[in-house]
Amino acid sequence: MRRSLLATFAVLILLFVSDVRSQEVTKTVAERLGYPRDAKLLIVHADDLGMAHSVNAATIKAFESGLVNSASIMVPCPWLSEIAAYARANPQADLGLHLTLTSEWTSFRWGPVMPSDKVKSLLDKDGFFRLTESEAAAQADPKEVELEITAQIERAKALGIQPTHLDSHMGTLYQNKALFEVFLRVARINKLPVRVAKTWFARADFLPSILKADDVYIDRVLDINPSVAPGDWAKFYSDAIKKLEPGVTEIVIHLAYDDAEMRGATVNHPDWGAAWRQRDFDFFTSDEFRKLLQENQIKLITWRELAKLIK
Amino acid sequence: MRRSLLATFAVLILLFVSDVRSQEVTKTVAERLGYPRDAKLLIVHADDLGMAHSVNAATIKAFESGLVNSASIMVPCPWLSEIAAYARANPQADLGLHLTLTSEWTSFRWGPVMPSDKVKSLLDKDGFFRLTESEAAAQADPKEVELEITAQIERAKALGIQPTHLDSHMGTLYQNKALFEVFLRVARINKLPVRVAKTWFARADFLPSILKADDVYIDRVLDINPSVAPGDWAKFYSDAIKKLEPGVTEIVIHLAYDDAEMRGATVNHPDWGAAWRQRDFDFFTSDEFRKLLQENQIKLITWRELAKLIK
Repeated sequence: MRRSLLATFAVLILLFVSDVRSQEVTKTVAERLGYPRDAKLLIVHADDLGMAHSVNAATIKAFESGLVNSASIMVPCPWLSEIAAYARANPQADLGLHLTLTSEWTSFRWGPVMPSDKVKSLLDKDGFFRLTESEAAAQADPKEVELEITAQIERAKALGIQPTHLDSHMGTLYQNKALFEVFLRVARINKLPVRVAKTWFARADFLPSILKADDVYIDRVLDINPSVAPGDWAKFYSDAIKKLEPGVTEIVIHLAYDDAEMRGATVNHPDWGAAWRQRDFDFFTSDEFRKLLQENQIKLITWRELAKLIK
Repeated sequence: MRRSLLATFAVLILLFVSDVRSQEVTKTVAERLGYPRDAKLLIVHADDLGMAHSVNAATIKAFESGLVNSASIMVPCPWLSEIAAYARANPQADLGLHLTLTSEWTSFRWGPVMPSDKVKSLLDKDGFFRLTESEAAAQADPKEVELEITAQIERAKALGIQPTHLDSHMGTLYQNKALFEVFLRVARINKLPVRVAKTWFARADFLPSILKADDVYIDRVLDINPSVAPGDWAKFYSDAIKKLEPGVTEIVIHLAYDDAEMRGATVNHPDWGAAWRQRDFDFFTSDEFRKLLQENQIKLITWRELAKLIK
């Protein structure tokens, strides 16, 4: 009798746990955050902090508008200290790390945080990170990648940055399964969410195979691309915002001023260049963007909220 | 008979050689260069190339005036590649290396060319070079200094820079005898002249004890200092040029534009800051400076000429 009673209890408990788990799994990220399933949630995220003074200054200015509310920092870059001082003075700011394994400009370069002879597979013949994400991914030893991205996180923390999330400069860490496994392992060790969108699963089928049910990932990432003419910048973004689907979307933007430093850094490279970044700054700090958010019932959220979902 | 004849010859040869040697030793650097003893020879030298785009752009512009005719490059700094491209395209330019063991700005930092774990004595707790030359010199292991400055020379050469001379950022390598010995050993190995002035012997008595008769050093170095009010800039330099003594003088200047990048880099530090460097640029590219050179019969020379004296 007692045995059969215990067995019945055990079955009931198992059914209950399984039901909770399946509910948990089928809940959208919006719901897990406490919003209705049809809420339109948006992170407006500026990449490349620390790269240049112009990037830091424009992004800090955009934060003040309240319309850009998240960004990530390139630890190996020369202006890290300036943005670390901002992070220490503004601990509420939603700042992540833009883990960096490429050095893509030709006039102005950077290299690893690790001792260079410990991460040789990441470096070009001149001792800098490689120019492109495909070259970087093809040559990178995943063990050295793990050492380097761990060192970047440690240096950021040592400078008083408490990152709320991780992403990958130029997407190098999404280029193949081995690199993404390293990225996710380091993120889990640090209990930090990673920029991953469900819409990427179709083009990178290793993503769902590595992700676990309780990893936090968003619904989609939007970004502009070189096919958009400069005159169509505001229209591209306006259309995207008007058509925004429910769920969590991250708009990834690149802010800087179109000044001498940025022109020098991005010389001969209009894509993601100085004028490009000024156009992003102008749109995302505009009243037009503020009105679009209101008119389309879009709520801004940050990676800090998403990070709380990580157990 | 034959023996005494040989002995006589030997004595005559010795006397002749000794006379040539003493003439050689007592010749001034100006005379060794083929100029009269009373010639006023001047190198107008801009420091800190590679530090920032603003520094590179202003120095290249000043070179075009013909009035600034020499400069040196900081290999560990982010804008090295931009100035290396200039050096490759302008092989006649008088470009040396400004060997760097300090990272003196707080918003914007740099570290070693060597793997960081091989030169730990050169680094602060954040992994960058130290802020001041005195701190750097007090902590530096001379063996690690030798590794690092050799690596800086090798990286410059690998990028196609053929340095004409060496000097030391913030004078770190002149701070004590051990560091200067390393500096001079590396310079001799590379057959490059080093910025040393006879007028420094009084305040650093280890200098003459290490220098050899055939080392090339100049008569004096002039530079402005923070005691000069911004409004007195042109007067300070004009007076110095009018009073210029015969021999080889190097005026050491710091060029950049007073723009957002330089203001960001030198924030809260007016000495050698953005406006300082703009003042230097304005004076040394001016017609006033050109006239002063003419009126005072001053001839511009470069380190390239001095380097030819090294056997």
